[in-house]
Amino acid sequence: MNRIITISREFGSGGRELGKRLSEAMGIAYYDREIITAIAEKSHLAQSYVQSISEKGTYVYPIHYGRTFSFRPVNQDNQAKVLVAQQQILQELAETSDCVIVGRCADVILHDYHPLNLFVYADMASKLIRCREKAFCDEALSEKAMEKKIRQVDAGRAHYRQLLADSKWDAKENYQLCINTSGTVIKNLIPPILSYANCWFGEALQ
Amino acid sequence: MNRIITISREFGSGGRELGKRLSEAMGIAYYDREIITAIAEKSHLAQSYVQSISEKGTYVYPIHYGRTFSFRPVNQDNQAKVLVAQQQILQELAETSDCVIVGRCADVILHDYHPLNLFVYADMASKLIRCREKAFCDEALSEKAMEKKIRQVDAGRAHYRQLLADSKWDAKENYQLCINTSGTVIKNLIPPILSYANCWFGEALQ
Repeated sequence: MNRIITISREFGSGGRELGKRLSEAMGIAYYDREIITAIAEKSHLAQSYVQSISEKGTYVYPIHYGRTFSFRPVNQDNQAKVLVAQQQILQELAETSDCVIVGRCADVILHDYHPLNLFVYADMASKLIRCREKAFCDEALSEKAMEKKIRQVDAGRAHYRQLLADSKWDAKENYQLCINTSGTVIKNLIPPILSYANCWFGEALQ
Repeated sequence: MNRIITISREFGSGGRELGKRLSEAMGIAYYDREIITAIAEKSHLAQSYVQSISEKGTYVYPIHYGRTFSFRPVNQDNQAKVLVAQQQILQELAETSDCVIVGRCADVILHDYHPLNLFVYADMASKLIRCREKAFCDEALSEKAMEKKIRQVDAGRAHYRQLLADSKWDAKENYQLCINTSGTVIKNLIPPILSYANCWFGEALQ
């Protein structure tokens, strides 16, 4: 069976960078946004539309009414199309070669492939700094608006997981290792995580 | 400043073994039950009594009344005596040498010493197997009774933390690394954790 590492991550925690660097250190494939392109091709839907469904589930984005908010629903057929295409693509990737997959609830979808599941998180101050540095958010956003965006993205991820599993997205019980990146330099985390992954796949841990 | 590693752990997760092995691998001091002995000496109270307060806070143990339960309170003066002695002893240890400290909310008490805080957890099936193997619980206990004991010990630890801090004992946000030991061999976890600790204290991560 191929070595599959899934990375779930809070927005701004550096999970994507960690996944990319880990895949390079291990010399294995890395999949993130490539999955969206593949789903869009398979389902004949626009990439931006697929991106929204693929990470947030039944809702496209929250709409605010004063201090309350509601959600704009997605066409149910399209949602099903995206979910089915995503499942097929993730399984194809898992069967093709060793890989690191970021997001998309790959830990749930690929459960039978016995992946190593990592969760990457950080405190809000660190996430704000990273978002600002990496320009993940619109640079004109105020600190408060940026924090709101971070919470909204993570709420979307949590919601998407609830569509696929009973377990909570950010519950440590669903992961073998939870890594707090607050105040850390991501690239320096790679040697210990690589050591952990090698132990895991060498079955030294089991 | 000395290198301090604190280990918080679910009962039966192997956190104590992990801490002991990590201290040996690093060649640094290890403190666990020794702290109880030191507190008992300092506060002139019995070790068993100190043990109960030191890990559960204001309550000695739960008493069941049918399907509900209440707690038997501890003498408030003794509680304060134990908490003060514990704080002093942990600070003395932290100032004496590099060390691994298991339990006793050392992550909270030694916050100013910038410890590396680890949380060790596992699923209930793994904890039951470990408790049975290591004879942590009375061997005559049924599976159900053993599970109840595991939950009670952890409830005590969670309660004790609430006495000292606003943060939740088992919330991953309070730790740099959360390690799921379900189905793993603890000794094989040491190389990656050691690598992580060396990076952390080498300030490579910060």
